[in-house]
Amino acid sequence: MAYRDEQLHEEKVFKDPVHRYIHVRDRVIWDLIGTPEFQRLRRIKQLGTSYLTFHGAEHSRFNHSLGVYEIVRRIIENFRHRPFWNEEERLLCLTAALLHDLGHGPFSHSFEKVFGLDHEDFTRRIILGNTSVNQILQRVSPDFPKNVADVIHKTYPNKLVVSLISSQIDADRMDYLLRDAYYTGVSYGHFDMERILRVMRPMEDQVVIKYSGMHAVEDYIMSRYQMYWQVYFHPVTRSAEVILSKILQRVKELYESGYEFHVKPVHFLSFFNQEVNLEEYVKLDEAVVLYYFQTWVDEKDPVLSDLCNRFVNRHLFKYIEFNPNLQLKQWAELQQLFKKAGIDPEYYLEVDSSSDLPYDFYRPGEEEERLPIHLLMPDGELRELSRQSDIVESISGKKRTDHKLYFPMDFIEGLSERSKIKKRILEILHG
Amino acid sequence: MAYRDEQLHEEKVFKDPVHRYIHVRDRVIWDLIGTPEFQRLRRIKQLGTSYLTFHGAEHSRFNHSLGVYEIVRRIIENFRHRPFWNEEERLLCLTAALLHDLGHGPFSHSFEKVFGLDHEDFTRRIILGNTSVNQILQRVSPDFPKNVADVIHKTYPNKLVVSLISSQIDADRMDYLLRDAYYTGVSYGHFDMERILRVMRPMEDQVVIKYSGMHAVEDYIMSRYQMYWQVYFHPVTRSAEVILSKILQRVKELYESGYEFHVKPVHFLSFFNQEVNLEEYVKLDEAVVLYYFQTWVDEKDPVLSDLCNRFVNRHLFKYIEFNPNLQLKQWAELQQLFKKAGIDPEYYLEVDSSSDLPYDFYRPGEEEERLPIHLLMPDGELRELSRQSDIVESISGKKRTDHKLYFPMDFIEGLSERSKIKKRILEILHG
Amino acid sequence: MAYRDEQLHEEKVFKDPVHRYIHVRDRVIWDLIGTPEFQRLRRIKQLGTSYLTFHGAEHSRFNHSLGVYEIVRRIIENFRHRPFWNEEERLLCLTAALLHDLGHGPFSHSFEKVFGLDHEDFTRRIILGNTSVNQILQRVSPDFPKNVADVIHKTYPNKLVVSLISSQIDADRMDYLLRDAYYTGVSYGHFDMERILRVMRPMEDQVVIKYSGMHAVEDYIMSRYQMYWQVYFHPVTRSAEVILSKILQRVKELYESGYEFHVKPVHFLSFFNQEVNLEEYVKLDEAVVLYYFQTWVDEKDPVLSDLCNRFVNRHLFKYIEFNPNLQLKQWAELQQLFKKAGIDPEYYLEVDSSSDLPYDFYRPGEEEERLPIHLLMPDGELRELSRQSDIVESISGKKRTDHKLYFPMDFIEGLSERSKIKKRILEILHG
Amino acid sequence: MAYRDEQLHEEKVFKDPVHRYIHVRDRVIWDLIGTPEFQRLRRIKQLGTSYLTFHGAEHSRFNHSLGVYEIVRRIIENFRHRPFWNEEERLLCLTAALLHDLGHGPFSHSFEKVFGLDHEDFTRRIILGNTSVNQILQRVSPDFPKNVADVIHKTYPNKLVVSLISSQIDADRMDYLLRDAYYTGVSYGHFDMERILRVMRPMEDQVVIKYSGMHAVEDYIMSRYQMYWQVYFHPVTRSAEVILSKILQRVKELYESGYEFHVKPVHFLSFFNQEVNLEEYVKLDEAVVLYYFQTWVDEKDPVLSDLCNRFVNRHLFKYIEFNPNLQLKQWAELQQLFKKAGIDPEYYLEVDSSSDLPYDFYRPGEEEERLPIHLLMPDGELRELSRQSDIVESISGKKRTDHKLYFPMDFIEGLSERSKIKKRILEILHG
Repeated sequence: MAYRDEQLHEEKVFKDPVHRYIHVRDRVIWDLIGTPEFQRLRRIKQLGTSYLTFHGAEHSRFNHSLGVYEIVRRIIENFRHRPFWNEEERLLCLTAALLHDLGHGPFSHSFEKVFGLDHEDFTRRIILGNTSVNQILQRVSPDFPKNVADVIHKTYPNKLVVSLISSQIDADRMDYLLRDAYYTGVSYGHFDMERILRVMRPMEDQVVIKYSGMHAVEDYIMSRYQMYWQVYFHPVTRSAEVILSKILQRVKELYESGYEFHVKPVHFLSFFNQEVNLEEYVKLDEAVVLYYFQTWVDEKDPVLSDLCNRFVNRHLFKYIEFNPNLQLKQWAELQQLFKKAGIDPEYYLEVDSSSDLPYDFYRPGEEEERLPIHLLMPDGELRELSRQSDIVESISGKKRTDHKLYFPMDFIEGLSERSKIKKRILEILHG
Repeated sequence: MAYRDEQLHEEKVFKDPVHRYIHVRDRVIWDLIGTPEFQRLRRIKQLGTSYLTFHGAEHSRFNHSLGVYEIVRRIIENFRHRPFWNEEERLLCLTAALLHDLGHGPFSHSFEKVFGLDHEDFTRRIILGNTSVNQILQRVSPDFPKNVADVIHKTYPNKLVVSLISSQIDADRMDYLLRDAYYTGVSYGHFDMERILRVMRPMEDQVVIKYSGMHAVEDYIMSRYQMYWQVYFHPVTRSAEVILSKILQRVKELYESGYEFHVKPVHFLSFFNQEVNLEEYVKLDEAVVLYYFQTWVDEKDPVLSDLCNRFVNRHLFKYIEFNPNLQLKQWAELQQLFKKAGIDPEYYLEVDSSSDLPYDFYRPGEEEERLPIHLLMPDGELRELSRQSDIVESISGKKRTDHKLYFPMDFIEGLSERSKIKKRILEILHG
Repeated sequence: MAYRDEQLHEEKVFKDPVHRYIHVRDRVIWDLIGTPEFQRLRRIKQLGTSYLTFHGAEHSRFNHSLGVYEIVRRIIENFRHRPFWNEEERLLCLTAALLHDLGHGPFSHSFEKVFGLDHEDFTRRIILGNTSVNQILQRVSPDFPKNVADVIHKTYPNKLVVSLISSQIDADRMDYLLRDAYYTGVSYGHFDMERILRVMRPMEDQVVIKYSGMHAVEDYIMSRYQMYWQVYFHPVTRSAEVILSKILQRVKELYESGYEFHVKPVHFLSFFNQEVNLEEYVKLDEAVVLYYFQTWVDEKDPVLSDLCNRFVNRHLFKYIEFNPNLQLKQWAELQQLFKKAGIDPEYYLEVDSSSDLPYDFYRPGEEEERLPIHLLMPDGELRELSRQSDIVESISGKKRTDHKLYFPMDFIEGLSERSKIKKRILEILHG
Repeated sequence: MAYRDEQLHEEKVFKDPVHRYIHVRDRVIWDLIGTPEFQRLRRIKQLGTSYLTFHGAEHSRFNHSLGVYEIVRRIIENFRHRPFWNEEERLLCLTAALLHDLGHGPFSHSFEKVFGLDHEDFTRRIILGNTSVNQILQRVSPDFPKNVADVIHKTYPNKLVVSLISSQIDADRMDYLLRDAYYTGVSYGHFDMERILRVMRPMEDQVVIKYSGMHAVEDYIMSRYQMYWQVYFHPVTRSAEVILSKILQRVKELYESGYEFHVKPVHFLSFFNQEVNLEEYVKLDEAVVLYYFQTWVDEKDPVLSDLCNRFVNRHLFKYIEFNPNLQLKQWAELQQLFKKAGIDPEYYLEVDSSSDLPYDFYRPGEEEERLPIHLLMPDGELRELSRQSDIVESISGKKRTDHKLYFPMDFIEGLSERSKIKKRILEILHG
């Protein structure tokens, strides 16, 4: 039998708290799960620094990747024998679902920002490069690795396949909303996924939703909205992320300035030099990053040591609402005051902005094209969701942005009571 | 106001998926949670290697410690104004609950076995030593640290206080059964904790259970039984633990033999020398251990490299039922065959035994004294649980033991097909 | 001890699937639960005809009444020692919560429509009249019955007390959303009630919500919106209700025309005569109504027999979207066609409209005054919810109305195939 | 297409809180659900008088019957293409599952006891008699009704089919344990049904369980044990049942003695005469019974009136542990004392016994043959469950029996304080 069609002698089952069981029958999927590249995802948290806000959020990307695979598996089980669906693309869908986050590194957001990386680029490189994953994909067929990479990169010609994993209601989002809600324990992320799966229908170039399932979709979009603002953008989480970015920035600066590290940032060198090769990249997991942070608590550079101590022992920055675009003068003054007080604003004063667009449809001329969700009406027509749903219409296209200023309140409180600088800083911060 | 009575301006709340919310009002508890020693528990998994079997089991001891605290808080909220209960011991109970696992290291079981350590000893040392935790406890009162340590060590005179945290139905067990069931996703660990809390009553030297709650307790004991055999003793988890112990054993041997490490086991030296000081101990968290394991994959010693590769990339040992006491001859022969095949049995052949006693009452003359669970009958009398419950009686005092043999099947399969050794090994293993 | 302060020797506990346990300590509450008037609520379904759509929705108003009591109990437990809260009004709140639905009859909606009744009026009459409930309330104090009735009727001077039971986020709504979701099994009605209870604060004339709980309230409002459209207004449920109303209408007409019933509508006579006394009212529970419907299946009047058969055996009317205001001509034509076909449109053709206003604030000059939900901002100010929440703002004040036409498709299909009437009816119905 | 193979144009789905969704594709199943005989099950509570103890337990047999159908549907979906399974018997299994409780009347237990009926006999008569159900079954094939009846009656030759619905781990039990736990809200009845369904395998004459699923089965048996003693045998429920039986007994006696009823027991006449025809039987649902009970509260016979009042308004009998076999003398004395006090012991003094055998295997020579649960071992052998499971072994074959005495405490308390009879009765009752 061809490798691509090989079935396991007995179905393998993973116990999963979110989907109850994850079922694997294909040899290819089983082999991919066993690769070092995929196992590495166990050492990268799904929600980065969120565990410092929600102590339950310690789950890994390994968890989530299995979940996305399982959702796609269930969707296409329902697609069998339906028009527009080509059973030949089943394995491609499952594989792309499983591997879609393969290139994520530890605390991706901060690393990407500081070192100018792109995890999607690394997903592609792992799939196409000299890796165990690639070897397995090659065995399926010579063009299979590229197809998988193209689906993940959204350039695969069959957009129906792409939309399973990347659209405004895809397996990726459904899994992470449910999963992150489960592990954090918040009550927001719930929606009736089983119902949504039952009303999904394949069409020429996308998955659409039967009209009768519209309310389940509304619920999903509301969940998404709440999870973004209550969990993903939580200011305590962002505070930890600000510190993390500052650590990376400081290490890079120290390295470039010739600073003598007590414990050298060996695993980071290629990042500093902007020439990250694949082998080095996959070695950098969260354990390694935390090892360095912990040892750097004892470095003599006071900024690095302090920032690492803050991250490791969770002494985070405080925050206030602050929009530097509207408060230009205060922003400039604060930087001056910090300098005068001997607190380097480069590392200790940061504005972080979060913004979210809970749902949108394509508007000609806009930069980022968002594939709208389409409802399949009883008469066979397709209709864009927000034209049918009052709730969705009301939030459609409405971008909300929050700006917050992060700073070490303990430093400010530690300034001399008589200091005018302290008084003035507090005046500005307390509005 | 005395520090011990200080209340937070506003109650702090942690979102917890198991108990929904964890409530903190006492300044002392809040300060303890903020210490580096307590935050360190975020970097130690509650279930060690279980995440390699149940991918959801990635939660930390930080999680569990907050949970035990919360359960004790709820129990003693119900105790207020009841006979035998002394509200003066409230803070002591809460503190002991919060800190009871403070001395746990990474993968404690293996470390304790290989290096002859005892995590309870370290809990004591952290509480009594020169630590942030100790400073806070000192502020409560000079004898407070010792009292907390004594409660955890079960030597505190008031046994009622001790039994909240250490008995056959204590806050520790109730939390870990519910929590581990939640994160693994298994359906076994559920019981009606709310009901049990409602029927707990303080007595002179123990917590007892009102008779009307007996069935909830039966359910709890069954949950415990199932969790032990289905989760805690799962052979795949034990396989990972066997490998972990072998890594530690190998590193120690290499170190003692003067082997030149590419990446030196700096953090382990005091462990090898059996002189672990507190400062070094608390630095060794799971991130550090995983950092070493990952770097040692590239060590030139083939055994160390192979074992680390197995652990990091989850290439575990296979297992069969095997009782070396009953199968002495095969045991000896297997060791010989492994040696002949060039597979060092010291590192690649191991028997691991699990045994559990789901419930027991004290029997005079026995080594380990187990405090029985007592029911408070409607007539005010106390009665040992198994005398009242058929179910509990039926499993009471029945120890069950499983023996399994672990070995690298891939090595054996890799032996030459013509080899008689291979054939004979497989014969023995397949019974 | 005064009766109003009497506590039960031991707390009584009801197992409740929604709130886990319902706790009763007050003798007055316990006595009220035991009255025939309250026990009667066991024989009246909470959701009327919804069980014909959602088979799980068989729960009674007894269930719900206990739930509302429990929620109020929890709210005011948090209010103790807070400003604006008067512990003297505790028992009044609990009693009003427990009894707020006491006057509901079977399938209230239809009975009220056909016979011009008002269940709130009967609640008042049971509380103030010659009943077991009244006797118990009298024992508390002579003015207690009136106070309870006034709270339920929203005329009690202390609006804080009123708002616990009647406002846009009261105990009544919170219980029914959670409870109806639980029993129907739909996934919409969930929101974090525990969080909402924690952020409720008493103020001078209302309960307000701390700003930090805004998102839980948004979730609650969305749940409400979804439950209305997915459950409460479900067209199959409305179809059963249409038939029920038609039965009542027919029985009344037959009675007034002197028809000789095989089984006389003894229990209905006072309803026909518009002089319903209390004693007769409380005797009419769902069992009695269903007894009549079942026996009337065998009545010789074909309309009554057919309608009863439809209700008892669930042969419901079909429905289409139809707005008679916009489709005046078709509406008139349909009625003509039905008459020609020998199907009395008075009983077999009905438009039913549902409309809902998910949230609104007071607008001067409007008929129905709706108390807005106020957020308590960090600076102590109060702010109307929709000014703070984008989501709520977007649906605030937006009334949505659905019109549906109900008719017996089986009758129409049973018309002769050659009939032009049949053809024309189907043309209109299929749009 | 043959009627037996007809599929619905679109799958029908029932929202179910226990199984989430119940799926119907077969036209035959859909038609059966629509019959008056099946719809009648909506008017019969699954747990009889349990709602007077657990207010949530108001669900009907309609609910449960759909649930059993759904479980069988899922089981045999897994059986397809497996040895021993004949897809030809699919519809038979589904139909028997759906209809297995069709003959249940209101409060079956009491009716069967007082009037010597057997609900299984009525199930058979409805299936084979002149009913809508029978017409549908006839359309499938002339012998189909008999086959369905035989499966339910356990006389069908293929025991594999029988065991799906009647064995110690069948769809009937799995559904009622989960469902009754859900509606009562107790935490006992949970077990991992999904896992059990996955490990069920068809064999020659029974369904067996793969060894790897043994622990899920242990959990199921423990759930069963707890549900029996905590829910089904709850003494408050039994108290209501005792009263119910006494009402039926009294009505019968009054009827036979020529008593003139104010409201005649028309629906009961054939029951008194022991000649219940099918038509009359299916008319007697719970609404009808409750209608009579309510009207009989006003009957002039004081016993009937009192008993009906007790049932309708939940003034139940109290109870104590009492074994008349061991306490013969007290039993006789109590009856004398009651007579002297003017309380008819025939109606006001009753011993009720409950006994349960949580699991058993066949023991030669025993009256009731119980099909044991067999495990399918890895080597292909079958093994009786209790030989493999310590837990099950420990409770296997152990029958537990409880005896309770029920009596109207309010009557006794109402006796004159000076009465020696009262004193003596209380002495005996209080042991």
